[in-house]
Amino acid sequence: MAETPVLIILAGGASSRMWPLREKSLMKFGEQPLLLTQLRRYATLGFKEAVIVANLENRTDIAGLVDHIKDMKIEIVVQPEPKGMGDAILKAEAVLASRPDTAVYINQVHDVVDNRLHLDMLSAYLNYPPATYLAGYEMEDYFPGGYLVVDESGRISGIVEKPGADNRPSNLVTFVAHLHSHAGRLFEAIKAEYTKADASDDHYERAMDALMKQQVYQVVRYSGQWKALKFPWHVLDIMNVFLDQLKGKGQQVAESAFIAKTASLVGDVYIGEGAKVFPGAAVVGPAYIGSNVIVGNNALVRNSMVLSYSNVGFTTEVARSYVSEHVDMHACRVLDSVLASGVNFSAGCTTANLRIDHGKVSSRVKGNKVDTGRDKLGAIIGHGAFIAVDAMTMPGVKIGEGAQIGPGTHVHQDVGDGKRVYVKQEIVVID
Amino acid sequence: MAETPVLIILAGGASSRMWPLREKSLMKFGEQPLLLTQLRRYATLGFKEAVIVANLENRTDIAGLVDHIKDMKIEIVVQPEPKGMGDAILKAEAVLASRPDTAVYINQVHDVVDNRLHLDMLSAYLNYPPATYLAGYEMEDYFPGGYLVVDESGRISGIVEKPGADNRPSNLVTFVAHLHSHAGRLFEAIKAEYTKADASDDHYERAMDALMKQQVYQVVRYSGQWKALKFPWHVLDIMNVFLDQLKGKGQQVAESAFIAKTASLVGDVYIGEGAKVFPGAAVVGPAYIGSNVIVGNNALVRNSMVLSYSNVGFTTEVARSYVSEHVDMHACRVLDSVLASGVNFSAGCTTANLRIDHGKVSSRVKGNKVDTGRDKLGAIIGHGAFIAVDAMTMPGVKIGEGAQIGPGTHVHQDVGDGKRVYVKQEIVVID
Amino acid sequence: MAETPVLIILAGGASSRMWPLREKSLMKFGEQPLLLTQLRRYATLGFKEAVIVANLENRTDIAGLVDHIKDMKIEIVVQPEPKGMGDAILKAEAVLASRPDTAVYINQVHDVVDNRLHLDMLSAYLNYPPATYLAGYEMEDYFPGGYLVVDESGRISGIVEKPGADNRPSNLVTFVAHLHSHAGRLFEAIKAEYTKADASDDHYERAMDALMKQQVYQVVRYSGQWKALKFPWHVLDIMNVFLDQLKGKGQQVAESAFIAKTASLVGDVYIGEGAKVFPGAAVVGPAYIGSNVIVGNNALVRNSMVLSYSNVGFTTEVARSYVSEHVDMHACRVLDSVLASGVNFSAGCTTANLRIDHGKVSSRVKGNKVDTGRDKLGAIIGHGAFIAVDAMTMPGVKIGEGAQIGPGTHVHQDVGDGKRVYVKQEIVVID
Repeated sequence: MAETPVLIILAGGASSRMWPLREKSLMKFGEQPLLLTQLRRYATLGFKEAVIVANLENRTDIAGLVDHIKDMKIEIVVQPEPKGMGDAILKAEAVLASRPDTAVYINQVHDVVDNRLHLDMLSAYLNYPPATYLAGYEMEDYFPGGYLVVDESGRISGIVEKPGADNRPSNLVTFVAHLHSHAGRLFEAIKAEYTKADASDDHYERAMDALMKQQVYQVVRYSGQWKALKFPWHVLDIMNVFLDQLKGKGQQVAESAFIAKTASLVGDVYIGEGAKVFPGAAVVGPAYIGSNVIVGNNALVRNSMVLSYSNVGFTTEVARSYVSEHVDMHACRVLDSVLASGVNFSAGCTTANLRIDHGKVSSRVKGNKVDTGRDKLGAIIGHGAFIAVDAMTMPGVKIGEGAQIGPGTHVHQDVGDGKRVYVKQEIVVID
Repeated sequence: MAETPVLIILAGGASSRMWPLREKSLMKFGEQPLLLTQLRRYATLGFKEAVIVANLENRTDIAGLVDHIKDMKIEIVVQPEPKGMGDAILKAEAVLASRPDTAVYINQVHDVVDNRLHLDMLSAYLNYPPATYLAGYEMEDYFPGGYLVVDESGRISGIVEKPGADNRPSNLVTFVAHLHSHAGRLFEAIKAEYTKADASDDHYERAMDALMKQQVYQVVRYSGQWKALKFPWHVLDIMNVFLDQLKGKGQQVAESAFIAKTASLVGDVYIGEGAKVFPGAAVVGPAYIGSNVIVGNNALVRNSMVLSYSNVGFTTEVARSYVSEHVDMHACRVLDSVLASGVNFSAGCTTANLRIDHGKVSSRVKGNKVDTGRDKLGAIIGHGAFIAVDAMTMPGVKIGEGAQIGPGTHVHQDVGDGKRVYVKQEIVVID
Repeated sequence: MAETPVLIILAGGASSRMWPLREKSLMKFGEQPLLLTQLRRYATLGFKEAVIVANLENRTDIAGLVDHIKDMKIEIVVQPEPKGMGDAILKAEAVLASRPDTAVYINQVHDVVDNRLHLDMLSAYLNYPPATYLAGYEMEDYFPGGYLVVDESGRISGIVEKPGADNRPSNLVTFVAHLHSHAGRLFEAIKAEYTKADASDDHYERAMDALMKQQVYQVVRYSGQWKALKFPWHVLDIMNVFLDQLKGKGQQVAESAFIAKTASLVGDVYIGEGAKVFPGAAVVGPAYIGSNVIVGNNALVRNSMVLSYSNVGFTTEVARSYVSEHVDMHACRVLDSVLASGVNFSAGCTTANLRIDHGKVSSRVKGNKVDTGRDKLGAIIGHGAFIAVDAMTMPGVKIGEGAQIGPGTHVHQDVGDGKRVYVKQEIVVID
């Protein structure tokens, strides 16, 4: 019987589209970073070995996390510059140099899927080890991704990028869940592409194109859940995946948590160690309240995740939002928003979440307007930003790390890292 | 014994002074429109037949309502243009053409009085059918209306319009509760006025002046409640009439309503079918909560009426206000205000209700400043207006149908139907 | 045995540094003015006689208060102009003219200390009546006050004003708790200074310098609590002294008070006669709620004092603040602030209490910027000021008596008594 493939987990790469958030692999959903959750899951599913491709910034943090994984052999390699997926995969070559015939299963940390997919991939491979397997996500609506060209037996003969709604070769979109039967051949094929003059950085895709002509590429169809962290508002989607896991579990309240007599826990809620839910406050599930969080008097948290040591102050509302650690909120409204760690969101502040015309909210990413596809979206606020009292953010606005927003400011546009923004009032004084 | 008079119910006429509200006869107080409430009451009091004078806009709606009344014969006639009360009354002539000697009791839907008045009018008439009876409202304070000139026996010899405080012929103000003994003679007298060159549109009043010289006009004194819907803030007065009817009835909670364990119902409150009162919320009587209304976490409704399918969001306060159907409110303060159906009142918004100098609040009606006589008055907001976050309305301000108020705007003046208003902030950005 | 000294209580003097607050001796902490609290305490400690030095403004009020003290003989003298402490003390001379050998114990009402100090002063004096005793407050950190020059036996040979941190003659700071063994000699010494040409107004200090050379001046060391009302934010310090006295006493709730079933009293709280704590409200100790105060639905009062007849409206938060009588607050946030009587603090208002840079809050006093030494400080608001909806005060701002702040105004600077301040918005209207 074939051996379990070695995971190649891509955790480097640029995250500039995630601005003002950083290091999406390390974002915590619940108590632990996404990477750790994923690694633990792979271990549960039977994987024995992984190579994580980190970058210069996150390598140390990742090394620290990996120490927590005891039942899987993990090596960390570093891709110093974000030079594409082919380059990233090649960083794993040194680890596997002595075992070119090992199968490798390439995944990205920030693609969140069901166990089902991994099990089906493994099962297909173990059933017929000579083939390479690509996940094919069944999508009826058009999505601007790569579509698989498959025959009736599920054999893949090509991938067509963004073919347009009417020219799709199939309803199968590929994403990074690729199980290659022979690591050595993959590395060689990628390196071959690097010797060519082609300016584009899709060496990995071109390598697969070449390999498909020589060996069997087979689709593994998948129709479960697939959420990817591409833009910062996707944090809310990933959060919902984790909140969904609370459903049906009722009220999980740590013994050291304090729940006031007149506080309300409604539905499926998780309350962590040392957390306090004060009088008149309500936590409405699905909701995750991390350790040592304070949900202050008459506050409300619903369909949200609030991580450790954050304060949900008096009469604050957190709805459908992701709030990281050490965030201070007071008498404010955090709606459909993402707050990175250390943010201060002062009294009277609101993240407006609905366009007056009820249209889809858009946001700017690297200068371009992007339709977020969301009817409701508040703000995305970076680490350590200070939002002073009575400020208001328009739907889809992003605020950079360490930025300072003055009192009463209406934030209509993105605010860069470290910028200070304030509003000048024309004040009249009469004796 | 004389027959019960036929009601002539005036439900047409212009409502321009009610702007931004419309069709005052059709405004709902509780579950049903005012017209329906009034019709049901007339039926209870023994009236058998009514002619409703509608206008082109409300005729269809009125026809639909009238279907609900089974124990009274009702005809609808239409006054195409608002050409005065005499013209309106004449529209009923066709219905009564074959019965000129029928007595008619003229009423307006938007005059809300006690049953006592109608019973006294009926009783006076039945006691002595040859006379015509006009209600005389006993007022000690001066009111700029029509005053009855009466002798000791209560016989009326004339009506003096706005005589000034020192020239009142009596303390009896007339309003539209007129029981004419002979419809035919009334119609003829009005038509006679239309043949004259007089430019004013008080044909009805002049007809009565003429008739008084030929037949007995007798006053029916009345000192009970009289509330009329003339200006839009009068909605609050009419609401209070209906809220008063809840008093002493305790807590009427529909079986399908949900009241959270930590919610408070205080005093005389009505909670309709399917309504939900969430944890920490309070409804303080007298208060009417219509069907399927949500009173959100930690919200407060007191001395108010909130109609079906409206949402009183988290920490919203609704005090001494009329909120129609399908209104969305969130973390805001609706004080001494009238919100028409479909209004969106966003987080952080407040209807300021008190002048800094504590003077009476005034409001503009058709270009003129009108003293509302109220110490506290918030805003009057028309159907479907969208008030964005952190907006604030000054006391007595009115906002038109479908208007859009941008975030943080201080609304100092009335905003016309469909207008968009927003505030420009001078924003300073520092690197 | 020597007789108990006569108190000379300084309650006049200018309070201009306390602006916009007035008459610090008469400020209420709990049910009664500070002066009355102090007088009752002196009586309890065994003092039999006091001379209060009032000013022209407070003499009548003080006379009214003194009527409440039955077990101590009290005379009121008036210092017409604030001409320094020497002048103030001399005003007491007439009362004691016939008893020059009486010992006098000079105190200021607005120095709040422990009983311990007074008992130690008394005990030292009774033990050896010929000496004069000055309190010496043991301070390790440098404080810009007057330092005692003492020998090993505790004999004082001089006082050095503001010597600088490195030149302190001792760690003993003097403050006004001076027990002079012979009133006549003190008065003479002060008068002697007034005959000199020295322009400074430290006649009292110079008189003591002279006396020290002739008689024994002895220190009474003290390391307990010492809080003085010098600047208006010191009200919060004095308040805390009184709140501390609630500690360990649990919940003292007047029988006539109303506490709703879903209200929360947490920790050591005092609730006065006729006070009402409405549903969902919380009072978190140490906290003092005066008589007839209303703590409205879902409001929160913590670590604060709210005096009689004030209203803490719906969802209002009062935290670490002093709120005087007849103050109206509604849906607002009063944080680390002092509100004089009759203030109206409207819905949506916030006293910002934290600098964005987390630095110490400063405030202007008589034109100069003063470091308040506080990390958190909100606003100080004078009697009868009206703060309209959605206004916001920056940390350390002061607002004068009767001032009016318009809606949505950001108050960045102090506002003088009776001034009106409002903000002009640039409004855009689109059809």
